[in-house]
Amino acid sequence: MARILVIGAGAAGTSAASNAKQFDRSHEVTLVGDFASTAYSPCGIPYVFGREIDSMDKLFLQKADFYTDEIGLDLRLSTTIERIDLPNKVAYARGGEQFPFDELILCLGWAYVLPDIPGVELQGVQFIKDIERAREIDRQLDAVQNVIVWKGRPVGLELATGLAHRGKKVTLIDDEPWLLAEFADPDVVAMGQKSLEDMGVKMMFTTQLKELRGENGKLVAAVTDHGEVPCEMAFMAADEKPNTALAESIGVKLGTAHGVRVDDMMRTNLPHVYAAGALVETMQAVAGVPVSLLPSTYAYPQGRIAGVNAAGGELHARAAYFPWAMEVGKVQIGGVLITETLAKALGKSYVIGEANGISSARYHPNVEPMNIKLLIEPKSREILGVEIWGGDGVKERADFLAFAMRKHATVDELANMENVYSPPIGALNEPIALAAKAGQKALAAH
Amino acid sequence: MARILVIGAGAAGTSAASNAKQFDRSHEVTLVGDFASTAYSPCGIPYVFGREIDSMDKLFLQKADFYTDEIGLDLRLSTTIERIDLPNKVAYARGGEQFPFDELILCLGWAYVLPDIPGVELQGVQFIKDIERAREIDRQLDAVQNVIVWKGRPVGLELATGLAHRGKKVTLIDDEPWLLAEFADPDVVAMGQKSLEDMGVKMMFTTQLKELRGENGKLVAAVTDHGEVPCEMAFMAADEKPNTALAESIGVKLGTAHGVRVDDMMRTNLPHVYAAGALVETMQAVAGVPVSLLPSTYAYPQGRIAGVNAAGGELHARAAYFPWAMEVGKVQIGGVLITETLAKALGKSYVIGEANGISSARYHPNVEPMNIKLLIEPKSREILGVEIWGGDGVKERADFLAFAMRKHATVDELANMENVYSPPIGALNEPIALAAKAGQKALAAH
Repeated sequence: MARILVIGAGAAGTSAASNAKQFDRSHEVTLVGDFASTAYSPCGIPYVFGREIDSMDKLFLQKADFYTDEIGLDLRLSTTIERIDLPNKVAYARGGEQFPFDELILCLGWAYVLPDIPGVELQGVQFIKDIERAREIDRQLDAVQNVIVWKGRPVGLELATGLAHRGKKVTLIDDEPWLLAEFADPDVVAMGQKSLEDMGVKMMFTTQLKELRGENGKLVAAVTDHGEVPCEMAFMAADEKPNTALAESIGVKLGTAHGVRVDDMMRTNLPHVYAAGALVETMQAVAGVPVSLLPSTYAYPQGRIAGVNAAGGELHARAAYFPWAMEVGKVQIGGVLITETLAKALGKSYVIGEANGISSARYHPNVEPMNIKLLIEPKSREILGVEIWGGDGVKERADFLAFAMRKHATVDELANMENVYSPPIGALNEPIALAAKAGQKALAAH
Repeated sequence: MARILVIGAGAAGTSAASNAKQFDRSHEVTLVGDFASTAYSPCGIPYVFGREIDSMDKLFLQKADFYTDEIGLDLRLSTTIERIDLPNKVAYARGGEQFPFDELILCLGWAYVLPDIPGVELQGVQFIKDIERAREIDRQLDAVQNVIVWKGRPVGLELATGLAHRGKKVTLIDDEPWLLAEFADPDVVAMGQKSLEDMGVKMMFTTQLKELRGENGKLVAAVTDHGEVPCEMAFMAADEKPNTALAESIGVKLGTAHGVRVDDMMRTNLPHVYAAGALVETMQAVAGVPVSLLPSTYAYPQGRIAGVNAAGGELHARAAYFPWAMEVGKVQIGGVLITETLAKALGKSYVIGEANGISSARYHPNVEPMNIKLLIEPKSREILGVEIWGGDGVKERADFLAFAMRKHATVDELANMENVYSPPIGALNEPIALAAKAGQKALAAH
């Protein structure tokens, strides 16, 4: 029997605690979280704001008593750990409560980097994180006309899409030169940008946010180096950072991506101290560099690895290829890292295979574009990265190609892939195969 | 310079002739077809009948002059080859026209097996093949109330779905015990069957068609061993056979699946005689047995291999895994061979991994079911077959899993696949990974 303490009750922590207990029910597993709620999907919040989903209540996956009664966790919500005494293996909560442990799992997630500008404390300036706070914002939104969204990062685009869908006048402001600049090349996001414009979203790129200006403590405008934008509400999809303060306070080492450095068993540099989720660094398989702040689809398996290993098992993590996809306006955009922009920055040699494919038979009313851009390594002929934009089916193709990359598939294997042809649901020529064939031609001319 | 003669102007023949000419423009390439049209998509016909597509004209991919003027083929439509003098290398058309050749490519496709019952010649009994004939049927359909569809094979289901969509009273009659019995297990097609019922289609399984009964030469009823069904039109999605008569007449050898036996370069047993498309046999990779009558998505690449090799190149074909998918009613069904039914018949050992997944976040209005059933080989832990039913995304998952099978992916690799999570387009847990995890559990208990 061991006492396993998990700090942080988001996706990684909930997974770590549940898997530790399920691996060996003799352990006492305590899960401590500072918010009042657990097991909800924060990713759904923009869609409730947008009225595509009609209630925040729908975002809850489980009630708290599932974790206590069914799984058998000691669940402590609204509890903030302030200090850890590592030599004596005790964590102290605000208010003085003590949590002794044998094994510690840190799942403290991420925090916003507050922009260093005047006015971030004004009423109307929103950093979306907690669902209870989101309920209040959702009610206030009815009285709001003009909103700004700061930064075209994923949550910013979900917010801009949702708020435009709800009829708000949305201005998206970003200091980067295009949407999703971390994930995607400008040619691939162009159609998403156009779709947002068609929905009435104004976009200001390469624009610095200088100030959030208030009157009587209430937000009235965003001040930028390209002029002022009147707004009653500002949604700050600001940069994020791994929430490492507590980990650092006990001597946990960070890596080059400012996240907690862990080995493939999710062990930190300290014995009996594990970490998982957005807090930690994961190796990006193609770039060969560690990245932090991975999304929640990685938090669950990482939490599981940390939980099972802390409970006496042995699971190993792998480098990530990182397929991603999302709706931007009415267009879907996605891919698998790395982008052409990143390939250039890393000095990697590559050839492009690109195709303007379609999602079903050309003559069928279901037909939507499915454009695929493959980055191909010229010697091995393997895939370095993928970008896709189109209609339905972007997510599935990103998943497929991430798997193909892990299996070291060559452009030739993709060019000769078998594919379903059925007029309403699949074109005669699969867009992935078309892009791969274009890649073969480009390689021949290389 | 060689004279290359391609007989049959469907998908395989058009591909063979075009690729032969493009490989070496010094060849004289002649493409002979017995219908008046070429380069249209016969797969679209049921959707025109169903009024999802508003005109047969939309099904044409290219005008005939594309092949003559752009590609440089000698294209001869409405021309039926009746006899081949192989020693002298001349083909004779009906009417006596001679086509001398150095290399011969047979792309004669398939023919219906006419059911051996009275009445197949009656007015109102339709075997869908030629688009010009389909235009007439489409016009006649306006005056028709009751139709039967004979056999729940793919084209029969497309016809039943389309005709029900157009408001016809449809009865589907099949001697098999469930829909798509060649491709799918009964548990997987059950939802498609229900969806067709919801659209008003009546289904009679394990039912023999005994007679098509007429009055004054016009169809009035289908007579079965389970009673009579009044109908003014009967669509015969009858069994098909490779159209081998001309090939056999010159000594081309057939295989166990009654198709032309070819090697991996699409060569028949006779020198300078190639074959491609539904006419030939292809090795099914998992079953290890040859199959014929593959759909047109295989006709194009096979035609290309035959054409390029006849023109002096060297391309090789591979065994096929055969991903498939289609709409049945409002449900999508698909998979990758082999089925559980076939695994049993072949005496293969297998374990099932099955999951009732979803296509997007549980709380998002886009959510649709995505059910996946994996057949797993217990020793290698590789995938033997896949069946899927659900909403959008069945085709993409069938393509993915056919590729994964070719790469010998194990159930463990699929269980640990990375996947996109984004509420409107992808669930936190990818259904493929859920099915693979269920498979791991089933293997542990095996």
